[in-house]
Order: sequence, then structure tokens, then C-alpha cells
Amino acid sequence: MRWSQTFIPTMKEVPSDAEVPSHQLMLRAGLIRQLMAGAYTFMPLGYRVVRKVSQIVREEMDRAGGVELFMPAIQPIELFERTGRKEAFGNVLFNLEAKRGDRNLQFALGPTHEEVITDLVSREIKSYKQLPITMYQIQTKFRNEERPRFGVLRTSEFLMKDAYSFGASIQQLNEAYDAMYNAYCRIFERCGLEYIPVEAESGPIGGDASHEFMAPADNGEDFVVRCSGCEYAANQERADTGRSSSIPPAVNDAADPRKVDTPRAGTIEDVSKMLSADPATFIKTLIYSVSNGDPDESSDENIPPKTVAVLVRGDHEVNEGKVRRALGASRLELANEATIEELTGAPVGFAGPVGIQCDYVADHDVALIKSAITGANEKDAHLTGVIPGTHFELTETHDLRNAIADDPCPRCDGTLETVHGIEVGHVFKLGTKYSESLNAVFLDREEQKHPIIMGCYGIGVSRVVAAIVETCHDDGGIIWPESVAPYTVELIPLNIKDEETMTTANRIYDELSAGGIDVLMDDRDQRPGFKFKDADLIGLPVRVIIGGKGLKEGNAEIKLRTDSQATKVPIGEACDYVRRIVSAG
Amino acid sequence: MRWSQTFIPTMKEVPSDAEVPSHQLMLRAGLIRQLMAGAYTFMPLGYRVVRKVSQIVREEMDRAGGVELFMPAIQPIELFERTGRKEAFGNVLFNLEAKRGDRNLQFALGPTHEEVITDLVSREIKSYKQLPITMYQIQTKFRNEERPRFGVLRTSEFLMKDAYSFGASIQQLNEAYDAMYNAYCRIFERCGLEYIPVEAESGPIGGDASHEFMAPADNGEDFVVRCSGCEYAANQERADTGRSSSIPPAVNDAADPRKVDTPRAGTIEDVSKMLSADPATFIKTLIYSVSNGDPDESSDENIPPKTVAVLVRGDHEVNEGKVRRALGASRLELANEATIEELTGAPVGFAGPVGIQCDYVADHDVALIKSAITGANEKDAHLTGVIPGTHFELTETHDLRNAIADDPCPRCDGTLETVHGIEVGHVFKLGTKYSESLNAVFLDREEQKHPIIMGCYGIGVSRVVAAIVETCHDDGGIIWPESVAPYTVELIPLNIKDEETMTTANRIYDELSAGGIDVLMDDRDQRPGFKFKDADLIGLPVRVIIGGKGLKEGNAEIKLRTDSQATKVPIGEACDYVRRIVSAG
Repeated sequence: MRWSQTFIPTMKEVPSDAEVPSHQLMLRAGLIRQLMAGAYTFMPLGYRVVRKVSQIVREEMDRAGGVELFMPAIQPIELFERTGRKEAFGNVLFNLEAKRGDRNLQFALGPTHEEVITDLVSREIKSYKQLPITMYQIQTKFRNEERPRFGVLRTSEFLMKDAYSFGASIQQLNEAYDAMYNAYCRIFERCGLEYIPVEAESGPIGGDASHEFMAPADNGEDFVVRCSGCEYAANQERADTGRSSSIPPAVNDAADPRKVDTPRAGTIEDVSKMLSADPATFIKTLIYSVSNGDPDESSDENIPPKTVAVLVRGDHEVNEGKVRRALGASRLELANEATIEELTGAPVGFAGPVGIQCDYVADHDVALIKSAITGANEKDAHLTGVIPGTHFELTETHDLRNAIADDPCPRCDGTLETVHGIEVGHVFKLGTKYSESLNAVFLDREEQKHPIIMGCYGIGVSRVVAAIVETCHDDGGIIWPESVAPYTVELIPLNIKDEETMTTANRIYDELSAGGIDVLMDDRDQRPGFKFKDADLIGLPVRVIIGGKGLKEGNAEIKLRTDSQATKVPIGEACDYVRRIVSAG
Repeated sequence: MRWSQTFIPTMKEVPSDAEVPSHQLMLRAGLIRQLMAGAYTFMPLGYRVVRKVSQIVREEMDRAGGVELFMPAIQPIELFERTGRKEAFGNVLFNLEAKRGDRNLQFALGPTHEEVITDLVSREIKSYKQLPITMYQIQTKFRNEERPRFGVLRTSEFLMKDAYSFGASIQQLNEAYDAMYNAYCRIFERCGLEYIPVEAESGPIGGDASHEFMAPADNGEDFVVRCSGCEYAANQERADTGRSSSIPPAVNDAADPRKVDTPRAGTIEDVSKMLSADPATFIKTLIYSVSNGDPDESSDENIPPKTVAVLVRGDHEVNEGKVRRALGASRLELANEATIEELTGAPVGFAGPVGIQCDYVADHDVALIKSAITGANEKDAHLTGVIPGTHFELTETHDLRNAIADDPCPRCDGTLETVHGIEVGHVFKLGTKYSESLNAVFLDREEQKHPIIMGCYGIGVSRVVAAIVETCHDDGGIIWPESVAPYTVELIPLNIKDEETMTTANRIYDELSAGGIDVLMDDRDQRPGFKFKDADLIGLPVRVIIGGKGLKEGNAEIKLRTDSQATKVPIGEACDYVRRIVSAG
């Protein structure tokens, strides 16, 4: 392709509204342009990358036994009502109303396709003989992001590969899951993207076992907790800590806690300043309303929620997923102010375990505090010198908090570290959540009916493109891995008005193109320095310069995007040289 | 691919709700499944065809100099308000409301992308030096079809290739238009689809010159008028007739028309029965309200519309586009009953040119009627013996009606014929409609500003697939052209439990696949007759049968889908034989 015949609107300046490098570089290199908040056009150069990533995804899905199909984006809202996802997605689900004749029809724009494919399978698959099968599509998904940001990392529509496995047994589910997990590893490797598979919560999509694939990146919105000593890695919601504590014996002759005035200081930060005390010596007491009904049953509305206080160390964060599991609860939310005042006799901010009028659970680390500061369950007052197990009862502790750096690993003797990451893929064992609500059943050998056992597997294709840019660049611009580069070679004739330069450049362009190498020739009438800057910015793997003194000496100058110096190669050998470094790359 | 490892749910019965062959066959061959009215999933076999057609479209777009990009589906409604298409599309445009924070945002789901790409170009293109350029995308489009029907021929979302050309001159527009026109011819040829390029009205999309590409098909919803003697072809809205007439001289001694009672007979059909007269001897008189303002200016609401009667022969249909052009009118609609009663003194159905109180225009053929029957402008009465040019004034006539079979060709001495067709592509010269409303301007060499001159070019990719099935099938099923067939070869081992059969079949499968030929092996444990029926149904171009008596004799049986008899080919030569007929096909 000749630069003059495509549309690559590069920019010198860093766009002021772009916060992260990938967003800045994708705008500057002319890969994307914004239509409105959360909506971008993939420009010709950017769309070539999208298509190359898509093709890698397709090849690996096919290799893993996936079968490609293509489902509608507009879906009947009724299917989402049956699976409960209309409520679970809430405002994130785009609702669509359409008039046909005198009917008003209600639709959703597909955020993913569990409902549609399960509905399809419920009609077409009847027997264990038709199982297992894994189907996938590469398709635009729609989600009403409250705060779209970071360019194409978080948008209201995005290209996704979503796959769904259907099996007759847990073993078939596990085989499909493993095949997808391995395919994901190959996909990210082939895309040149560093990745960490992490254990993950399953979130509103349901199910009970999942992994996220995270690209480590300083500006990533997600947190990965991983062990420096073993392979353990999990996202922050899921990460266990290796901490466990034995309950300290009660101290018989302990002094009573001392009550101190802490006027208007209702946060750990305020009180720790006021008392000049380390937050790690505080016990944070958060009061939750806890429901234990089946989350899929609306009847649980009738069971009144219970109130439970959760105790963690002052510098730790409560992990609600862990609390939910420790309590066997289906739903958890912070209690309202009235409930807190009733239980503690004080406004929010002064709760503590000593004398509190409700059940409580404590994190392991709480038991290790020798002398703690807690709320006094009284307005504008805290207690100091509180001894866990002595001044309040403590018979067992749990892992109830987010893991942090330097926590012990739950699997080995190592220490945990935290890194930021961009979620680029996610694999779930869904189980029978969708097949039960949409009646997708099969008959086994004995003609017995069972719900089909499902998995679902997603890769954000447009997000992978942004993650590659986010992690593969330098000050000059993007550094494309060869497998996904929009073109492999940038050919730069230094002066397009010089006949010998152009004759030579055109010959090399034709020869490389004929050999199946994607070449972009910068045939613009611009100064060499201008072209070099743009070449660094758009970041093609190989650069071939024709003209000037080099050409007079009979040489082309060839360099990789990552080289600082070019190599002089005789014109006649230039194409061979490029082919060699390309196939070695 | 092995049949057992993909998902091809064939059906023996013709689905009762599928009216046309393509809909029936696409369901029966497992190419599509309905999600809801107007929404279909492309199943694995069907999606392979979609991808093959898409790839042909992409290659020909690239060859014609088009540059591929990808725009958002969700678009700001404001752009449609600026171009007037919100009103023009009306209920066909899917409107979408989304809440973000405390704002309610209004969007449209893109029915096409004139607005988005013109907005993009208005920001990025400033100079004639950046022109011409043609950009395209292959993307799902959304239209709220009032009555979705015929499977994927008319759906609320469909895959479309839409291209847009931007030029600095009419010449650049014409070059882009011709390049796209020629690319479309190559695309349909490569897809094995018969097509007729026809002159067309431009419709609500705006602009003043366009061609539709029609696939002739008995069940097509569109009408094509074409000449048997020359290349002339147009859709029915656009087709000219070769008719023109000289005005007959007034007859001096003519008898007055005779008034006849026609109680409650207000239609040509009723009156012609009542009077036993040929409808071709009637003059049909339709009364229109006509506006002459600029359709893009809302101010024309203030100019009162004029009333004009249109006269055509009783067996002809008024063509409103022709009337609009003949009158230089911007809008045309049938007058309401009150206006008609006021003008004619009679209820609707009894208007006629003799003594009517408004201007009128007549079709050429009206002048040729020697003695006509018309409404008497009086309730329950008609006139007979009306002589055009004598009993009512006639100084000129126009082409005001739809062309019909046996009309003279407007270009040669030939005769017109009409055929049904499916519209599969459309090319438009848009001009500056969009660039003016969205301010997409360029500076010429003299630094003068001009609106960019645009064209737009669409192909319904999913509709092309249906049109191929609609036109390429026999009683047994689909007959895929090789270029778009989901697989090229169907390999049928007659008995999968026979070891020699499977060893041979697997060897042929591997060898053909390794040679780059798409093979589908029907490895189901089914009777041969069952497999043969399915093979006819899904319609792959080449069938290779392995097993039974043939295999004992050392032969494979090979036939084209269109052959009635198979050829016996020695097993060792089977792959060569297939390669030969495939590359010759």
C-alpha cells in the first residue's frame, strides 16, 4: 500500500484528553478516531491490526475444535428476563424499543450471547450424542459503560470473540475449558502480548470457576496478585492470602480498654492522626446486611436479612466476596445508617467489637493485633488497648480481606506482589445456570434428561489491540509485534521527486509485495525527518530507506523498529535481507 | 471438517413458515436459524458462505482502490437530525436511549454510515491534495423492518459492505463511481450470481444518479424493466418508456361526450364491468397536492401546495417520480377527499378532465385514445366518447406512468420486458447533500472552499448469500457455486464401521485438506441414502463416495453436484481427479 492511497492521519501533538499511552498513540498514529464518548472508528491502519488479531483468534479457536457461527446483536429482552441478567446487568444493558405495526417490541443489544446460544442449543441439541460442542463468534458487543475511558480499552461497543461450550458431563466441561485456556495462551503468545492467567471471581455472568487473562500494564484498571515464588496468580477479588492465625488465649489480668474522645473523627485516617497511631493497630468494623436465600429465587425477598459486623485490620480492605463465602451468604450490602445507629448506639464511624449487639466475623490478622484501637460504640469516642480474644470473644478467624503486596502466598513459602493489569480474556465454567433457566437439556444413554453443562470464553479483540500498544511502545511510538503489525515493512524513498530513488523504491515495493510481504511505502512529498518520525510513531517492524548518499553507494538502509542503527545492504540484496529478518522475527 | 465435529442441523421437512426457496433451503440445510422475527443466526455452514462472499467483496474493493475501516454501530442521533435522515427514515431507524450518570443520551443504530464517515472526513480532510479517497467497511447494519420476511432477505440486522467516495470534482466522483460499478460486476460474477445493473431512483438516501444491481429471481420483491434488444435496464420507479405521441388535432364536428349513470362505481374496474368497456379506453384522473419548495428547507411548509390532476390510461399506473420530475415538484401526495370534492363537485372516483377546476398533465398514451371514458365530475356519472384534445385541451404530453411489458424501449427499437429481481447492490452519486449538511469541505488549489463531492455504494452481503441460494438450487437442494461453497468437497464414507472404508476416506480427507481444498467428511453413522439426500441438500460442488462395491473394485465414485451420474475413479487417482475438476470449475 502507498501512503498517499490510504488514510493515515498521524498527529504530532499528544491529544490532551488521552490519559494513557495506548490511547495517545492510537490517536497519534491514526489507528482510531473518536465519534463520541465511548465510540471509536477503527481507521484503515488500526483495522488492519484488528483483522490480524481476529485471524489469530479464529485460527486458534478452530485448532481447539471450536466452530464459528454468527448470532444477532439484537436480542429479545425476554431471554434476559429468564436468566436474570436484565436485572444483573442493570443500566449496562442497552435496551431497545421498536414499533412494528401496532406492537412495541422490547430488545436488548447483546452484551454477550449466553442467552441466544443456549436458546439455539435448547432447540437443536437433544442427545448426549450431539455433545460436546464448542461454538464461537467474533462480533461487536454492546455495553452502556457509565464512564467510557482509555480509548478503545473501555467503550460502549467493542469487538469480542465469545465462545460457548456445551457438554454432557463435568469431564467434557473441563476438557473444553482446558482447550480454551490453552488456546488463549497461544493467542496471546502469537499476538506478542505478555499475559498472566489469574484465578478470578465469576462476577455477574454466574458460575463457579474462572480465570482471567491479564496483560500487565502500569495503567491497567485491574489488580493482579501473584506469587514471586510459585505460579500462583489471582485477581484482587479472588486472591487468597497465606495468612492464618491461632486465636490468642485470653489475658486474665488485662487492664480494661481506655475510652478516648475522638470528636467528629469517624474514619481510621482521622483517628490515627488524632491519636498519632498506626492504622495497622486499628480494628476496622464494617456492618453488613446479609441475605442467605438463593440469589436466583425472588422469594428470598421474604427472608429478613441478618446484620453481621466484619472486623479487619485498619489498613486492610474488606473483600466482600470472601465475606460472602465465609458466611455462606447470597447477598451482602453495607447496612444503612439507621441499622448501624440502632446496633451501636452511635453514628456511622464509631462501631467496634466490644459490646456490639450483633454477630461478627474477624479476619485472621485481627487476632494478631496485641493492643488495638476500635470504635467505642458511642458517639465521638474510641477505645484503646483492646485485646482481641480478651475484650471481645474470638473463637475463629477467616480470610476476609484483599491480599496486598508482601502477604504470604497461599500456595508456597513465597511472598505475594501486586501488579496492574488489563483484562484481555476470561474463561468461565458456567455449569447449568443458563441451561436450566432456558431449558437446554439432553438425554443421556439411559434416556434421562439433564441440563447441559456449559462454559463461556471471551477475548476482547479490540482491547487486545490497545493492550499491545499499551505494552509495546517507546518514546517514539508503537513497536508492533510482527504477527499483528498493520504492515510488516515501511519503505521510505527519501525524495519522491528523484527518479532513481522512485524507480528503486517501486522495484523493491513490487518484489516484496509479490513475495507476500505487507509493505507500506511512504510516498508523501515530505522531508526525511518528518517521515522517520511518522515511521517510529506507526511502528512497523522493518524499515527500508532508499535514497540519498546510501543509494549513490548502491545501498539500502534497513533497520528493525527496535534497532537504533540501520544496516547498509546492497540494493540487489535488500529484498532477500528483509525476507530473512522477517521470517526470523 | 468432519460432520460430527461441526453443527449442521439439516431438516427433511419444508418449514411451513418459509415462503421462498432460499428461506426454505437455508433452514433445511442448517445454514440459518431464526432467533425471532427478522433476526437469524448464521450457523457454521452458513457463516462460511458469508465469510467467503465477504472476502470476495473485500478483494474487489481493495483492487478498486478502496480502503477498509470500521465505524461504530451506535451513532449520535444529532448527526441524523443534521442531515434530515432521522425524519426520512422514520420508524425504520432504531432509536436508542442510554443513561450515563444523570444524562439521557439519544443514539441511532446505524442503518448506513453516511453521517459518521462524512463527520470523520470533515475533521480529517482539508485539502484537495487528500482527495479522492474511497473508504469501505463490512459491518452489521440495523433497520427496523416493519415486516421482516423471506429469511435473511429482509431482516432487522444484516451484513453490508458500505463504501463512500470523496472527491474534489465531478470527474473524481465519476471515476470512483465507475470503479465501484465495475467492482460490483466482478463481485457478482465471482460469486456466481446472475445480475442486471439497472438505472434507479435514489430514494430517501438522496442524490441524483444511481444504479441498482438486481439478481433476477421469480420471488424477488423488486421489478426490473429491461429491453430485449439493447442493454437498457431500469427499476420500475425509474424506467422510461419509448412512447411519445403527437397531440391529435381537435375534431371540429365531434359529438359531445355522453353522460352515463354509473351508480356507486368509482373505480375503473367497476365502471369497465358496468359498461363492458376495456380499461385501456379509460382515462384515469388522479388528483395530487404538489409542493415546489426545496425539500431540505422546512420553510416550504409556508408555500401552499398546488393541486394538479394527472391523467393516464385506465390500465396504466401513475409513476409519482416521473410526475414529480415533469412538474419540477419537490413533494407529491394524493389530494385529500375534501379537496377532490371541492374541485370536481363529486366524491372520489368520478373525476375527469372535462371541465375540471385545476391544472392537469397527461401521459403520452392518453393522447392516443380515440374515444375515452372518463369521470363526469359528478356523483355516480361518467362520460363516454371523450376525445382528447377536443373535449379537453391537450397541448403537450409526458411520460408519467410505470413502464410495462411490451412497451417500446426508450433507447432502441426493441421492446421492454419485466422481470422480478432481488436488489443485491446499489451505487449512488450523492453529490454534496451530506458534505453540505455536515460541513465537509476542502480547499482547492486557489484556497477556495468547496463541499466534498460524495458517492456511496452498498452490497447486502447476507442478502447476496440468500440470492445465490434463491437462484442456484434444484429439487434436491442448493447448488453452490464453487467460489462461495461452504466446503468444496463432500467426502462420503458409505459405512463408517468398515475399517477399509474409513482408512481410505481418512487418507483422501488428509490429502485433499493438505492441498488446500475444503473438505467436509460426512462421518455420521447413517445409511448411504440419508447421507446422499443431505449432500444434495447442502449442495457442495464435488461429491466423493468411498465404500461398498466401488471400493472393492478399487474405485471412488466422484460427481459434481450438477451431474446425475458419478464417475468411477481409481482410489489412487481420486485426489488428482478432484483437484483437476476443482481448478477447472
